[in-house]
Amino acid sequence: MSLDTLNLASREDALTWLHGLYEHSPWVAEAVVDRRPYASAAQLRNAMAQTVREAPRDLQLALLRAHPELAGKLAERGELTAESTSEQLRAGLKACSPEELARLRELNAAYLEKFGWPFIVAVRGPRGTGLTRAEIIATFERRLLALPDAEFGECLRNVHRIAELRLNDKLGLEPVLGNQVWDCAELLAQHTDAGFDTLGQLTVTYLTPAHQACQVQLQRWMNDCGFDEVTVDAVGNVVGVYHGKSPDAPRLLTGSHYDTVRNGGKYDGRLGIFVPMVAVRELHQQGRRLPFAIEVVGFAEEEGQRYKATFLGSGALIGQFDTAWLDQRDAGGITMREAMAEAGRDPSLVPSLKRDPSKYLGFVEVHIEQGPVLTELDLPLGVVTSINGSVRFVGEVTGVASHAGTTPMDRRRDAATAVAELALYVELRAATQPGVVGTVGMLTVPDGSINVVPGRCQFSLDLRAGSDELRDALMNDVLAALERIAERRGVLYSLEETMRASAAPSAPAWQLRWESAVVATGVPVFRLPSGAGHDAMKLHEVMPQAMLFVRGGNGGISHNPLETITSDDAQLSVEAFLHLVDQLAEAMPTP
Amino acid sequence: MSLDTLNLASREDALTWLHGLYEHSPWVAEAVVDRRPYASAAQLRNAMAQTVREAPRDLQLALLRAHPELAGKLAERGELTAESTSEQLRAGLKACSPEELARLRELNAAYLEKFGWPFIVAVRGPRGTGLTRAEIIATFERRLLALPDAEFGECLRNVHRIAELRLNDKLGLEPVLGNQVWDCAELLAQHTDAGFDTLGQLTVTYLTPAHQACQVQLQRWMNDCGFDEVTVDAVGNVVGVYHGKSPDAPRLLTGSHYDTVRNGGKYDGRLGIFVPMVAVRELHQQGRRLPFAIEVVGFAEEEGQRYKATFLGSGALIGQFDTAWLDQRDAGGITMREAMAEAGRDPSLVPSLKRDPSKYLGFVEVHIEQGPVLTELDLPLGVVTSINGSVRFVGEVTGVASHAGTTPMDRRRDAATAVAELALYVELRAATQPGVVGTVGMLTVPDGSINVVPGRCQFSLDLRAGSDELRDALMNDVLAALERIAERRGVLYSLEETMRASAAPSAPAWQLRWESAVVATGVPVFRLPSGAGHDAMKLHEVMPQAMLFVRGGNGGISHNPLETITSDDAQLSVEAFLHLVDQLAEAMPTP
Repeated sequence: MSLDTLNLASREDALTWLHGLYEHSPWVAEAVVDRRPYASAAQLRNAMAQTVREAPRDLQLALLRAHPELAGKLAERGELTAESTSEQLRAGLKACSPEELARLRELNAAYLEKFGWPFIVAVRGPRGTGLTRAEIIATFERRLLALPDAEFGECLRNVHRIAELRLNDKLGLEPVLGNQVWDCAELLAQHTDAGFDTLGQLTVTYLTPAHQACQVQLQRWMNDCGFDEVTVDAVGNVVGVYHGKSPDAPRLLTGSHYDTVRNGGKYDGRLGIFVPMVAVRELHQQGRRLPFAIEVVGFAEEEGQRYKATFLGSGALIGQFDTAWLDQRDAGGITMREAMAEAGRDPSLVPSLKRDPSKYLGFVEVHIEQGPVLTELDLPLGVVTSINGSVRFVGEVTGVASHAGTTPMDRRRDAATAVAELALYVELRAATQPGVVGTVGMLTVPDGSINVVPGRCQFSLDLRAGSDELRDALMNDVLAALERIAERRGVLYSLEETMRASAAPSAPAWQLRWESAVVATGVPVFRLPSGAGHDAMKLHEVMPQAMLFVRGGNGGISHNPLETITSDDAQLSVEAFLHLVDQLAEAMPTP
Repeated sequence: MSLDTLNLASREDALTWLHGLYEHSPWVAEAVVDRRPYASAAQLRNAMAQTVREAPRDLQLALLRAHPELAGKLAERGELTAESTSEQLRAGLKACSPEELARLRELNAAYLEKFGWPFIVAVRGPRGTGLTRAEIIATFERRLLALPDAEFGECLRNVHRIAELRLNDKLGLEPVLGNQVWDCAELLAQHTDAGFDTLGQLTVTYLTPAHQACQVQLQRWMNDCGFDEVTVDAVGNVVGVYHGKSPDAPRLLTGSHYDTVRNGGKYDGRLGIFVPMVAVRELHQQGRRLPFAIEVVGFAEEEGQRYKATFLGSGALIGQFDTAWLDQRDAGGITMREAMAEAGRDPSLVPSLKRDPSKYLGFVEVHIEQGPVLTELDLPLGVVTSINGSVRFVGEVTGVASHAGTTPMDRRRDAATAVAELALYVELRAATQPGVVGTVGMLTVPDGSINVVPGRCQFSLDLRAGSDELRDALMNDVLAALERIAERRGVLYSLEETMRASAAPSAPAWQLRWESAVVATGVPVFRLPSGAGHDAMKLHEVMPQAMLFVRGGNGGISHNPLETITSDDAQLSVEAFLHLVDQLAEAMPTP
């Protein structure tokens, strides 16, 4: 059956057809059947997910409890739904060893005892891939440690994912473009720096052998996708250009970084290379040429892991490359100059990488959200309003260390409670404005003792907002609060600013293009700021830019091997990118 | 001139005589002259100190500013008061090297710049001793780092100390008994554990060679003082008995510990051995025998530094000695059993040390306050109302570590702000009742990063109050607050109780004896709880007890080499002890 058939079917037939997407919970189908027709599977999926989101908690709980245990008694007795039987079979749960079966039963019991509903995990990946039994058990063990309401949300998200996979099966849909993205991420993640390979961790830092292997791989893929020019530039960026209709056509610039943090994820940065790469592959296969060229850059470096310098790749495109960096040494004593020479990069050519903005329409970047917002709202895509401006400090409050038993409360100069007051102020102040965040991430009483009133307390401050004005207002309020707290408590403080970055608000016209592109995929527009920095921040200095965020799984975790997306969400990203390209093409005068 | 002459002198003569005690500040003399007669120098000193205490801040500041700089311009030009000239001369400041003079001038300038008044330090100790030039410079450097209002108080206290020394000079008074205490403390502090001697640090832990040298020294002194029986018992306590009139006379038990913490002070514990020792010396020299015997115990161990066991000395007297402790090993792998054998102590005899309470009148203990209360109130002595009961916990809050930039404020599970809220609650709750204290002394976000919302935060809780009921009420409130905070913030916590000790309220009759004794010395009675634990806590379990606190210098710091008292305060402690003995003697029926 196709989506069209569903749209045109009788109410009863449609209900029958939708039945089984949400285990033993016909109320979900009931709620969405009358909202037909659906323009896309994504729109239908979203309608169902939002129905569950808005349902009362007891109905949500009943939905979770309607699910069978993994390899549980129902499976043994053959009493699962057809869908569950197939899923548990595909996950190889029938082939459990006695030890695995015993462990799963232990886990099932502990989980039910702790949370009061069965453990639910979407075990299938694209095209028959999926979690192995060992991975299922590891996921089970990890989630058993979660906080109850976070785990409640995680189970509902897995229910939605299961429904999504079931819907794909029923409609015979395959996220073909998303699968290509998924495959690229899997393959590129096979390259990892020496020392991390044996740990099974993904770490690709600037110009290591693994980093250079990534360059080679990206070049090969770009060539395969049909890019007309593919090069590695002086700083290590992999640059692919898909020509426009005319040689002098302006260019759309896009891309993201392929380096990673230590023990990082497969999508941070890389997703923003794969998505336009797969989109160009589509254009090339369709033989389409646009009134503009598409220049996809795999930026060599963004994370600042090997050297104390960040945005080496995107910085080079706007003429920012500090030659003093060349003398920095990595942990092994190798200078950046030596590393570049070894990798065949010529720092003297880096200034020539600076782009002429007049030749570019603008810059767009697709990136995994690296946060919980989209996943908690059950939305696959989000449009970035601004890359937050930020300022960071490290500080120390000095009071007087004294005996916890013999110093009356009114004679204390407690450094830790002073910082505690600051941390709560930061939390409260940041919460007063949407998109504004403030964090005391480091907090420690050096050599603290159980029976000593803290005489010193070290802390950090990380303050971010969607504009420099909002950031500065936040910073001024926080600094004034610290001053007041120190004054009132009779303690001293020192504070060192360690970083300040300007906000990069999205160019309105470009943000609107992403919004239209999202709507075209069938999911609602959701706007959010980017709390983290991205390559787009650099390009922002010279041309209009806007970013698209893609939902991350596992609660949105990033800089972590648990970072993940689904191939269905990847599919929507490629579709959105192609739609943005279409909009641009339509808006440009035919020469 | 004697105190009697001053009491009887004309107002004008008395003012002239009092002039110069407080540098260029005749208002202090004016305020006290009409309160004559004074029963003791201590009473006069107290009247002057309280006058300054209650003066407006600008008058106090003028008093500080009336003092000359150390080795400053006035000294060079010979324009100091006679008193200052003599004091700076005795401190050897005339003999400064050019380097020392340059350093003092730098310090004078920096200090004046920071605080707005000159650095004031009482440089004289008993009988011509005092701070060396190097010590003066070290004190100067340390106090330059202080918080302004704490340093303001410290300067005023040094002004009082200078006045006290000047008054002694004028009256030809010498704190003879206090000097004996002072000398004992200095001499006993020459024994320190191996490894600490080269650091110049005082550390005497259970049964080390230094500890055994202290035993020998204490025995020798007790014999010299006229004790009738002096022994070292099976646990290492040094026990001196000064017989009463009859062999079957009941006994007054007193004493404190002679072991120290690592890098500790000279008075913690030891003062409570020296004071009754010097008092017995007085009684013996006067040939007085009382209707009761005095048993002074130098307890071998209280601090729990070498082994994880505390109160070994006083515990043995009440039959508390856990034989499991004997198998504990110190950091060097030596068991307590081996250490005892090596030192000639026989653990099998420890049970025989248990005292029969019916043979004792009660237990009294003199101890340095180890807190800021008395020194900040300019009071030399304080009467303890209760040794606080306490309970300690270590705990950890678990939230969710997440990206500080990308996690909106309303989606955080910040473990550190949860603990911050707890720490502020503890502070606020403890402050609602006098004598109750609560401290979060350890506080740390493990592996915290500037850009990560804390997922874990470890902390400690130390809660104390004058009675078990107050302590438990405090504890219940704090635990309920933690529960509420965790519930509201959606974080988890774990908490482990590591210690619980019952409160030991002073026996009212014995507290009253100390109060009368304090009044007899000429200073007002001030009652305060003991926040720290003391040997009296152990004896409390079997007999009435009460403690006397002696003011500590340097802000009341303890467990620190800066711990100090004056020989004048030590003198008052001995006088108070003798007075308590007199009261007891008077109250007992003559046989």
